[in-house]
Formats: sequence, structure tokens, C-alpha cells
Amino acid sequence: MTMFNLKSLAYLAALGVVAAHDNGLAITPQMGWNTWNHFGCDISEDTILSAAKALISNNLTALGYNYVVMDDCWHAAARDSATGAPVADPEKFPNGVKDLSDKIHDMGLKFGIYSSAGKYTCGGRFGSLGFEEIDAKTYAEWGVDYLKYDNCFNEGLSGTPQISHDRFANMSRALNATGRPILYSMCNWGEDGPWNFAPTIANSWRISGDILDNFDRFDERCPCTDIIDCKLAGFHCAMARIIDFAAPVGQKARSGGWNDLDMLEVGNGGMTFDEYVTHFSFWSILKSPLILGNDVTNMSNETLEIITNTAIIGLNQDLGSGPANRMWKRTVKEGGDLQLWAMSLSNNRFVIALLNTSPNQQTVDVDFADAFFDQGKTYQQQAYQVSDLWQKDDSGNWGKSVGTIQGGIKNVQIA
Amino acid sequence: MTMFNLKSLAYLAALGVVAAHDNGLAITPQMGWNTWNHFGCDISEDTILSAAKALISNNLTALGYNYVVMDDCWHAAARDSATGAPVADPEKFPNGVKDLSDKIHDMGLKFGIYSSAGKYTCGGRFGSLGFEEIDAKTYAEWGVDYLKYDNCFNEGLSGTPQISHDRFANMSRALNATGRPILYSMCNWGEDGPWNFAPTIANSWRISGDILDNFDRFDERCPCTDIIDCKLAGFHCAMARIIDFAAPVGQKARSGGWNDLDMLEVGNGGMTFDEYVTHFSFWSILKSPLILGNDVTNMSNETLEIITNTAIIGLNQDLGSGPANRMWKRTVKEGGDLQLWAMSLSNNRFVIALLNTSPNQQTVDVDFADAFFDQGKTYQQQAYQVSDLWQKDDSGNWGKSVGTIQGGIKNVQIA
Amino acid sequence: MTMFNLKSLAYLAALGVVAAHDNGLAITPQMGWNTWNHFGCDISEDTILSAAKALISNNLTALGYNYVVMDDCWHAAARDSATGAPVADPEKFPNGVKDLSDKIHDMGLKFGIYSSAGKYTCGGRFGSLGFEEIDAKTYAEWGVDYLKYDNCFNEGLSGTPQISHDRFANMSRALNATGRPILYSMCNWGEDGPWNFAPTIANSWRISGDILDNFDRFDERCPCTDIIDCKLAGFHCAMARIIDFAAPVGQKARSGGWNDLDMLEVGNGGMTFDEYVTHFSFWSILKSPLILGNDVTNMSNETLEIITNTAIIGLNQDLGSGPANRMWKRTVKEGGDLQLWAMSLSNNRFVIALLNTSPNQQTVDVDFADAFFDQGKTYQQQAYQVSDLWQKDDSGNWGKSVGTIQGGIKNVQIA
Amino acid sequence: MTMFNLKSLAYLAALGVVAAHDNGLAITPQMGWNTWNHFGCDISEDTILSAAKALISNNLTALGYNYVVMDDCWHAAARDSATGAPVADPEKFPNGVKDLSDKIHDMGLKFGIYSSAGKYTCGGRFGSLGFEEIDAKTYAEWGVDYLKYDNCFNEGLSGTPQISHDRFANMSRALNATGRPILYSMCNWGEDGPWNFAPTIANSWRISGDILDNFDRFDERCPCTDIIDCKLAGFHCAMARIIDFAAPVGQKARSGGWNDLDMLEVGNGGMTFDEYVTHFSFWSILKSPLILGNDVTNMSNETLEIITNTAIIGLNQDLGSGPANRMWKRTVKEGGDLQLWAMSLSNNRFVIALLNTSPNQQTVDVDFADAFFDQGKTYQQQAYQVSDLWQKDDSGNWGKSVGTIQGGIKNVQIA
Repeated sequence: MTMFNLKSLAYLAALGVVAAHDNGLAITPQMGWNTWNHFGCDISEDTILSAAKALISNNLTALGYNYVVMDDCWHAAARDSATGAPVADPEKFPNGVKDLSDKIHDMGLKFGIYSSAGKYTCGGRFGSLGFEEIDAKTYAEWGVDYLKYDNCFNEGLSGTPQISHDRFANMSRALNATGRPILYSMCNWGEDGPWNFAPTIANSWRISGDILDNFDRFDERCPCTDIIDCKLAGFHCAMARIIDFAAPVGQKARSGGWNDLDMLEVGNGGMTFDEYVTHFSFWSILKSPLILGNDVTNMSNETLEIITNTAIIGLNQDLGSGPANRMWKRTVKEGGDLQLWAMSLSNNRFVIALLNTSPNQQTVDVDFADAFFDQGKTYQQQAYQVSDLWQKDDSGNWGKSVGTIQGGIKNVQIA
Repeated sequence: MTMFNLKSLAYLAALGVVAAHDNGLAITPQMGWNTWNHFGCDISEDTILSAAKALISNNLTALGYNYVVMDDCWHAAARDSATGAPVADPEKFPNGVKDLSDKIHDMGLKFGIYSSAGKYTCGGRFGSLGFEEIDAKTYAEWGVDYLKYDNCFNEGLSGTPQISHDRFANMSRALNATGRPILYSMCNWGEDGPWNFAPTIANSWRISGDILDNFDRFDERCPCTDIIDCKLAGFHCAMARIIDFAAPVGQKARSGGWNDLDMLEVGNGGMTFDEYVTHFSFWSILKSPLILGNDVTNMSNETLEIITNTAIIGLNQDLGSGPANRMWKRTVKEGGDLQLWAMSLSNNRFVIALLNTSPNQQTVDVDFADAFFDQGKTYQQQAYQVSDLWQKDDSGNWGKSVGTIQGGIKNVQIA
Repeated sequence: MTMFNLKSLAYLAALGVVAAHDNGLAITPQMGWNTWNHFGCDISEDTILSAAKALISNNLTALGYNYVVMDDCWHAAARDSATGAPVADPEKFPNGVKDLSDKIHDMGLKFGIYSSAGKYTCGGRFGSLGFEEIDAKTYAEWGVDYLKYDNCFNEGLSGTPQISHDRFANMSRALNATGRPILYSMCNWGEDGPWNFAPTIANSWRISGDILDNFDRFDERCPCTDIIDCKLAGFHCAMARIIDFAAPVGQKARSGGWNDLDMLEVGNGGMTFDEYVTHFSFWSILKSPLILGNDVTNMSNETLEIITNTAIIGLNQDLGSGPANRMWKRTVKEGGDLQLWAMSLSNNRFVIALLNTSPNQQTVDVDFADAFFDQGKTYQQQAYQVSDLWQKDDSGNWGKSVGTIQGGIKNVQIA
Repeated sequence: MTMFNLKSLAYLAALGVVAAHDNGLAITPQMGWNTWNHFGCDISEDTILSAAKALISNNLTALGYNYVVMDDCWHAAARDSATGAPVADPEKFPNGVKDLSDKIHDMGLKFGIYSSAGKYTCGGRFGSLGFEEIDAKTYAEWGVDYLKYDNCFNEGLSGTPQISHDRFANMSRALNATGRPILYSMCNWGEDGPWNFAPTIANSWRISGDILDNFDRFDERCPCTDIIDCKLAGFHCAMARIIDFAAPVGQKARSGGWNDLDMLEVGNGGMTFDEYVTHFSFWSILKSPLILGNDVTNMSNETLEIITNTAIIGLNQDLGSGPANRMWKRTVKEGGDLQLWAMSLSNNRFVIALLNTSPNQQTVDVDFADAFFDQGKTYQQQAYQVSDLWQKDDSGNWGKSVGTIQGGIKNVQIA
């Protein structure tokens, strides 16, 4: 993983952006923390409050990690038998969800919840299919700011974009009807192409099965080779496979509606430091929501170093263009491949990133005819100031200048 | 086929299980016997009663083989012209189905029947499409405990999960409405992905076309190379092909709702002893229903040895996790492949299985980084007591201890 | 192309057959003649009457070629403006269709017509979509015995089996409602898998785009590599490609409902004698309707020799089993492939056929373990009397005995 | 790219043509100019009027380029709040669209507009989904002669031909209901196979994602390898890829309804002169609408030379047959391929075209058995007068005679 920031000596107008979903949220990709990747079903009021405090004490909120999202398994055994309203597990949440939400808000953070557009959630709790209105109304009363909405046990309501759209649009309308701005994070695993139908109903949409905390292992539980027409999204999708999946659909993301590559695994132990650097870098330039998935109450310095890199976060939050595009992908003889990605930023800046999924270190030349293919000949031939976003300058800021370059970068080595 | 049971020296919590279909049945995969694989349409009251008696006399009922299922061709030429109720062939079943069912119940067994969600059954008898309520009601009156529900002549009612779900949900509701617990065994051959939509309506669902009593012959009547989006499930699917089909969908099975790999062929003559051992072992660890398909009134010792292996049956009925996962599949130069499968069991035990579909004996090393990939590093590095489930110990029980091992198994030879 | 008839010395029960579509027609595959392949739109009363007379004078009717089918372009410019009834072109058919039909019937033949389940026919004439009832009624009044029903300009009514089924079932019901037995020959080019949904509504269904009078040329207008999920059936499908297409779907045909491989090209000039022998042989064993498509008023002796081979016709009309199955297909290094096909016949007979689509003559051994795979070991090991169905015996009958054989046929050469 | 015109010494009847969509427009493929490829969203009254004047002053209108089409971004921020009618941007179009249209008409040209069958246009302006009637009525009042109708933000209304057909048929009916002849140019990027369902509702239909001004670069934003069942049409489809896409669907075009390969890039700078010659030649013989996409107020001589080649335009407008067919495509070892295309013209003429997408110059022999495969042996064996359509004769007319030839063309070199 090598990632350069290029500052053009000429001017490139940033593309105008049009908000997709019209609730005014997720103007830039949302940032925050979610219980699932680290804690799974083993959550309680304390899990969530502790994490919220840790986000603050580690200065993560100042960087934009503001949503604290309570994923699956917060539920009581059943809905309220009289009203049909959702009820939280009284043991895990003895003070109720409203109280938890108030405390989160009092810390200056926002509070998110989870449900599924099915009969059950993926963890087997009561789902929201057919209960969209009462659930949205209850969430609003609880002070919920964010809904992650899953796809399990959907009773066959998939198979065409129309069927999937209509099922998820029901909750979108219900959320809007509450009058409370609630960020709508769709999670239908890419079924029926949400990048096509979700932008007018949701603020983000998952594009694949659940992430695996692993660099690039093939796992049969994530069986599709691409996601454009995948009929079994599954789970256990390795990080580099999700990058592969994201390549063709980046074109569909825009302000207000983002491709969600799933929550981050940085700090959960399944990858090396360099692999997590790659993970965080690509989630940023692919404009995925940046939702931490580790135990933020117990982080190594390495983990903190990665998730607090302001230069990388800045790429994610920059509205100069849509997500990065893959300019080429070259098969490596020993297995895996090399990839060149590029993206325009605002203020006449650009970023390029190199990815190596082969088992060995590789050396590549980067031709600006590829890196600036989209910008055209003028940009391919001019000179750029270059900075490396994973190095710090003398003031300790990320993005150390590493010189000026024209026409291409020779003999870059990537591990 | 090599299959080891590993007893960890450390502790692994069994995954919690959530019942899928809510009729309280098939908490573990159902076991029993079915007329079709051996007798086809040539059945009568005597065929079924004789088999039931043989299940008892061979002690198979004591092992869990409790359902006696009467497959296609039990029907009279037409429904009752006055009521529309289903009628059995008066020559084959001179005492009626209720009488047969009573006799089965009197032996302490359960009784199953067959129909199709179409205009006709696959054998050309009257189907249940549009007759779900009267058929379910009649089955309940007859004392039926189990329905295998097929997919022939469905009048185009397939093509999206929604269309297929709705057709099969009609019978699910009708069965539930009878008040009698009737295990619902869906058989739509994997069309439109029943692993996604069936868990809330059925106790098991077939994932492919009908099995062929053959190890791995390619037959054009089972043309799809995978089943995730197969448009012609067909039949004559060799045993090893069905194992291949099952690999990605194991993740969808759970207590109350299982992937059905089709009825067993053990004892029907198309495979060798070793091949039937593989067949039975994989049906077990893939948590398929174990429905015998041979003539149980006339079994060789070899057949009995296979189907009465209590260690293998125990893997199938263990609720410590979902079905086994394929950890790798490696192409063999001469054709076919080698496969490593692994599964967690309850009580801190694990099973690994090796499959060789190449024409020659192969030698492989098994690395615990693969076998225990899901459990993580702790499990990859500790020591295990190992037993071979196809050997008997001194007391004659299956699962002879073959030592202790750590880090992996070297130079395993598989035939 | 080599085709042997094997008479077993042991007994094989013919499989029972169940009529699919319930109008009592096409108990065996229909035979006859159709205007399209030779005359296209250039037809008139005379074209059809001349062909009918030629069928009789050439003794073809005695062999079963009884349906005389008038394909597209018989139409007037518009329907009757008052009643909406279909009207024939008054110039081409000055005496009307009823008169033509009467004349055909007077010759002892049956009369067929053509329309499309669309806004227009493929030739741009008025279609029957939305006019099913009045069209069926008019056809019945005209004495029509057969309808070929096409798929052009269908206004998007395809894409799931349900949508296609419903569109074609409308005409099926309309034909049945007339009270006149009218053979229903569906022609939706295999879209949405008619082999699955058509058996209960039609007597035959086309499985692919239109045939090309050519042995095996690849033509981009027939782009799909298989037909199981083809989204552009097209036309110009070479003969050997249609055989390829037919391999997996043979399992779906049965008495009353057949896979239609399209009308015959024998005698139209695009293939050699040997290639037409292959064409006619495979259409026969695949149980396709045998509808002549050449100019029967002007036939060479070679053409007559092929289409009057009673042994081959007998294979097509035999109800001992469904269509032949492909037992293996082996790629040939120089291109193309070798194929072994086999089929059970009634009265304990069997047929095997070899196909060579490579550019050179090939030599193969046929192992009875392959040829009699379906029948099992007893049949693989016994002796058979063998006759070659393209040779005549001393009495001039097709199917000359060429000896007795056991275990397999060695060193067969096929051109 | 080499393109020959062959004049047969024998006679070939031109195929009869049947108008598809019945509004009497696009009898031959439409020609004109569109704002998008060069100006994108940066348009105004002046952009359009200047282009119209340039079409006239450069004699392009005399050649048939008559439609001046205003693409996306002409819109005000919102529809008229009282009536719901569409409103143009008052700054860009201070005199309104009706005035602009009048001026275009006064120049003897026709005026086109753009909208999308979605909630928004692709540029984020208000779309026409649910506003078909008022939009069509307003367009007619504005004197619009042409509607390009896009596919963005369609709220999941795709996935089967039926769903897509119905959405686009709504606008077709609305346009017809205005009583004004308005050419209907569908742009759903080939989703759900418009070549199958659009001929009865539209005059042309886009077959792929948006064109990239580049010869053959693979770009992941145009990810599908063919378009027959593409689920993500995308954009940035290189010119030669669109030719590949067009090969199988040419069979579906006919007078009144054409495959649209997207607007031309000739003159926009991304390809060489030879590449633009190929681009223009293939758009012509594939019977695509010829809609200029460059800045016609500022054209090089080379650009003018290409777009004013009357011999090539003549191929496009000739109704002797449908689009050219690809007779073969041969992989080249160094990458890319060679292709032979052929088409019948009226008056017993034919055209053949050779395409080379490999990196090197190639030499090929053209066999008339291939070039005249469709016409049969007579045509394969006779002699032809040959002219090269990219050379001028002594009078300066395109299509210089280059001799007579029989049986094939030897050793053609193509760059």
C-alpha cells in the first residue's frame, strides 16, 4: 500500500455534487463506532457508554467519529404485546434505550440503532418487516439518530430491484415521517444492486456480505466473484475482496448516498499493521462510511495511529469528487494482483494509491497517462508536489512532502 | 475420505442457536427412511410397513431413524370429485392412509407423505397447487407427521425468491393451520435460493436436483456448475457434486431449518463401500436430513455398518454449530480435487474431514491455521486429542482415539 | 454420425409415460410440413396446396407427416375493423382460409396456422396478444388443427417463468375453450425455460432461436453458449449448436409435451448429405417434432432417402422412454467434439448415436459402461444384436443387422 | 479499419422493412447534434443556437444532421409549484425554451430535449417519473421534436423486461397523446434488453453505458463483458467495446426503431484520425443514430472530413437491410482481435468492413464464403466492382473505385 497526495500546479474544478437521499444527512460519509465487529451479541448499556467515553477520551470525536451505533441483540424477547412497539432487553439495558440515548447525546455524540427488514434480525431477534411505522416512531422517541437496517429473514422479498427497493423504501418513508433526521444506513449486502436504487431512499448501502478480519483469504461463505449480480452475498468477505467488489460501483456514490464497504476491522487482530493501513486507506478513498469496529476502550498505539491519520480521514471527507477509481489491475504471476487507484480532491489536489495483493513485494512504475486518465493530457504532463500521507512532517502532521514529480512515478516499491 | 474428531484441551463456547421455522420440529436434522430412491413408484402399504418393521428390527429407530416417508405415487387417479380431498390408490392402500399411519404410529414411528407444489406431482399424480388447505387438513386427519413437498409442474411460479416463497409459504401456513405438528420438508431443488427464503417457512429445503447413486460422474441432466443461481436443477446429480453445491450455503442452516442434500443412496449399489462412507460422513457434517433410501428389509453388513455409525450420526445431531465449512479446495493435476472441511461441535470438540475426488490416492498435510481458521490463533496452536470416527475402540464404540496432535496433521493419506 | 440399434437379450421395462398437456394431442412428436424454412413470407394458397399434394404423392403422409402448417405472412393488412377477427390476405388466399383448410382436410391431412404472442408477428403482421379469444375462435371456425405461436414484439412480457407462462397460457386456454382439438406449438425460443412451465399448457415448445441451414458455424446472431438462462435467443443457430442446447433439457419432454428443436432443413441445400443424415437422426432421437421445411414439390432422391427412413422415424415415435441422453462429450484437439448419445426404446431395444463435430474423421471406442450407464450393470455386461439404422437389409427395410456385441463397440470410425 | 463497397453484377432483392414504433419517425436513423459529449452541464441558449448556426454554415444540415438536442441541465431548480410543469433555468434560457425552439425551427432544424425516467435526471435535476403526461404536454407546447429519455434514479423500476418496458412505455404513450410527432430516443443503457421490448414504443434505444472518447481502453466503470444480461451498464465504455456490444443485437433493429450506440465523439480529441474514421464508419453500418457530440462551432478539417463523408452516411441511411453483421472475430496473439463485418445495401450493393483492435498492423485474407455467407453460394462466387469508401474519385466524391474482384480479397492490410 502506497498512497500519494498530488497537488497540481494548475486548477481543476471540483465536480458539483448533488445530494442523493434528501434528508440532509451524510453530506460526507458518516463516521463513528459500532458494537458488532468486536462484541457481537454480547452488548449492554455499559458496552456502549464505555465506548462513547473512549471515543471522547481518545479525541476520536474531534476527528469526526460521532455516531455510536448499537448493533443487533439489544432486543427483548418480544415486542410489547399491547402496542407492538419494540422493547429493549431489560437486563442489558435496565434504564431503557431512551436513557442511553440521552447520555450519548449529553456527551455530544449521536446515537444509532439496528434492525432488519425481515421477520427476524440476523441474530434471531424480532425484525421490522411489517412494523416499519411503529419502529421508526419508537426510534424517534428514543432519540435515535442513525438506523442500520439489515436483510435477514426477508421472506423472499428480493430478486428484482423493484422488490428490494420497495421493502427498504418502506422504512425510509417511515423514518422521514417521524420528522427527526435519522441517518438511514441500508444493509442489504448488495442484493439487486442498491447502488442503482438506494440513492433516493438511503444515506448509505452495504455493497457485499459482511467483512472478515483478514487481508485477502478466499472463504466459500463469500462465494461470489463479483457483486454486480451476486445471488449469495454471504459473509466472511476478506478486506481485499471487498475492495475488488467496490471497483465498478464507485461511480454510483455521491454526497448524501455512499457505498458502505462494512465496518472497520482495524484493531481487531486479524491483519498486520500494514494490512490495516491498507484497509483504512481504501475505506477512506472509496468513500465508505468509517465506522470503527474495534474495542475503543482498549487500543494499541498502532491502532490509534491508523484511525487518527487526519490526512487519510480528509480524503474520505473531501467532496472534490466521488470515490477513487481503479485505473488498472494487473495479475501477478505468483498469485494476486497489483492495482492503481486515483481520485480527484478539492482545491486542485489528487490522490493515487497502489495496492499489492500478491505474496511478494513488487516494484511498479506509475504512468501519469494512467493516473490522470480522467483529467486528460494537460494533467498528465504537468508537475505535481507530492506528499506521502502515511508519513508525518516536521510539525507532526500527516502528509509529509516528498518532492515534485512529472509524468509518472518510477520504481515505486510496494510491500 | 478421512475424518477426525478433535477434542480441544481448551474451551470453546458452542454457538447459540435460534430456531428458524417456528413449528418446534427438526431441532436437529430429521432422520428416517423414504420409499423413492429404492422403490420409485412401485410402492404399497406392504412396502412401507415392511420397511418400518425393518427399521425397528435393525435397531435403526433407536439411532434416530424415526420418520417413515411415503414418497410419490401413493395417489388414486383423481381427487374425491365431491370434496376435492386427496385420495390414495385403493389397490396399493386397501386400508387407506389413516390405517397405515396408525400402524406406523403404533410401532412408535412417525409417518410422512409426499406432494408437489404444482398441478401434478413429478410422477404425474394430482398436485397440491391450489389445494393446499384441503390437502393439509386431510394429511392432518390421516395422522401425517411429515410432508415432502416437491416442485414439478409449477405453472411458471418461480423466477424470483418472492414467487417461489409465496407458493411454498401457502402450504406452510396450511400445515400450521391444522394444529398438528407436521415437519415441512421443502423440495424446490434450490430454485431462487431457498436457503434465503425458506428458513421462516420450512424445516428443511432441498438445495439441488435429485441425487444420482454415483460418486462423481458428470451427468448433463444435472447441468449447473453451481447452485447459487441455477435455472435447471435437473436430476442425476452425483454425490460429490452435491457436496460441492453445499459448500457456500451451509451458512444458512440452523436448528429448525436445514439444507437437504437429498435422500441417502447408501446400500443402493452405485458406489463402493468407501464412497458410501464418504457419502454418509458428509451428509452428516453438512447437517443434511439423514433419510435412508435403500431397501432396509435387505441390507448387507457393510450398509448397516455405515448407517449405524453412532459417532457420525452424532456429528449430524450435534448443535454446537452450523454445518461444516470447506476451508480449502485444491485442484489435482489428474482431475478432481482435494478438500478440507471443518466443524465445531459442542463440548469443546471439533471435526475435520478430508475429501479426495481425484482418481488416485493423495497425500496431504493439514495445517491447523486452516482447520481452525474460524476459531483463531489460540485454537490453531494448542494440542488436541484425536480420534478416528470410522474406527472402533476396544469397547466396540465408534471413534477410536489415535493420539494427540498440535499445529496440524502431517502426511495424511486419503484414498 | 453413426447410429446403432441394440436389441437386448434381457428385458427392460419401458418407462411409463404421463401425458403432459391434456388435450390428447402430440402423444408422439408431431410430424408434418411448414412453409417458413423454404418459402418465408412468399406463400399463397397454391404454395400450401401444392405441398399437401406432394406429401401424398411422395408417400410422406403414410409415414406420419400429416400436419400442413401455414407459417407467417398469411395475414391481411389489418384485422376486421368491425369484429377484430383475423383476416387473411385476400390476394394470396382468394378463397379464404376455411376453404384452404377444407381442401387440406379432404386430402386426409391436418391444417396448421401461425401467430405470435405479441403486438406483431415476427414478419410485422398483426399479432394475437390481447386477441387470444377471438383468434382461437376464428381458427377453430376455419378448421385449424395446429397453432405455431411465436414470441416477437411481446411488449416486455418476459423475464420470469411466471410472466412468460401467463402470456402463453392465455392462448392455451383460448384454444381449449373452442372445443376443437388444436395442437399448441409454443415458440418462445426457450426464454424463461419453457421446458419447466410449458408442459401443462402446450404440446411442444421451441428451445432456442431459429435454426440456420448449416452444420455448426458459429453465428453471433445466436449468441448464447447455452440456453438454460439465455437472454437473447436470436436466430441463425447452426444445427449442431441446437443439439448442444438440447442436451440438458431432454429430461423435461414426455408424451403430450415435447422439446421443439425447430423445423427441419433437410433438402434446403446448406448441408451435405451426411450432415442432413445427422440432422434428421438427432431430431428423431431428441424427440423433436419432425416438421419438414424444404420444398416438398421438388426433392432430390437423397432428401427423400433421409426423410423416409422408417427406422429413424420409428425412434422418434417410440414411447419407450424420453429423448436420448448425452452420455459424454469429449473435446477434440483440432476443434469441435465427439459425443455419445443413448436412448431406451420399447420392446427391450436401445439406440446409441455418435456425433463428431470436429473437422476430421475420428476413431472412438464405445464402452457399454457409458452407453448403458442408466440401465445399470446387468445391461452393461450382456450381449446385444446390433443393426445399423442407415443401412437397408435384403428386403430393403432400414436397420440392417450388423452382428452381435457385448461390453462395447471397438474402434468405431465416424466421419 | 478498411471498408469496401461491393456492387454485385447480379441482383439481390432488398429486404422488406416494417416500421417498428408507429409514430412515422426515424424511418432511417436520426442525425443531428447533442450538447452533452462536449459541453456537459455547461449549456445555455447561446450554446445551442451557436451550434445550430454552425450546422448550417458547415453544410451539415444538408447532409441530414437536422436534430439539435439539448441534453441534461436545462432545468430550473424546481418544477412550477402550481402546475407541476417543467421549467427551464431562467438564467441559461432567459427567453424560455419555446423561443429557443422557434428559433431552431426558423433555421429549418428540429429541436430536441432531455429528461429521465426517474426521480432525478443523471445531473440531479427533476426527473419525469410520475410526470410523464405534463412533461410530454409541455414539450409539445414548446415545439419539441425529439426526446432523449434517460434512466437515472429510477427507484428500482428495472429488473425484468416488463418493469422496464412499462416505465418507458408511459412516456411513449404520453408523447403520442400530444398529437405532435416527437422522436422518442430511449436511453436505459441496455437494461433488461430494450432491443426486445422497445421496438413497439421507441424510435431508438441505447444499448450500453455512456461512451468514452477512447478507442478501446478497458475502464472498470463499464464493467460488463457483454450487454445481453448486464446488471451495471455504467459509463466510460470505449468505442470498440460498444462495437463488441452491438454485434448480437443488430438483428433487432429495423426502420422506425434503431440500436443507439451513443452520441459520436468525433472531434472531441480522445482518439486519432484513424480511430475516429473507424468510430464513424461503424456507427454508420451498425445503423446507430448519428448524433454529433463535438463543438461544431470549432472543428478541424479532419473532423469535418469524417462527418461529411457522404458515402459513409449513405450506408447508415440505406434501407436495403438491417445493421451490418459480424461474420467473424479472431483473437490476435498480442491482444485485441480482427473482425469482419458485412451488410447488404439496396440496389444490389454490399459493404464489408474490417476492424483491427490489436496493437499492431495486421494482414488478412477475406474469403467471400464469409463475407457473403448470408447471401449464399451464388453471391460468394460472382464478381464485384469494388470501391473504397474513404477515398475520393476524380470528381471529389467519396467511394473511389478500386477494381473488380471475385471470391475474396487477398492480403488486405489494416492498421
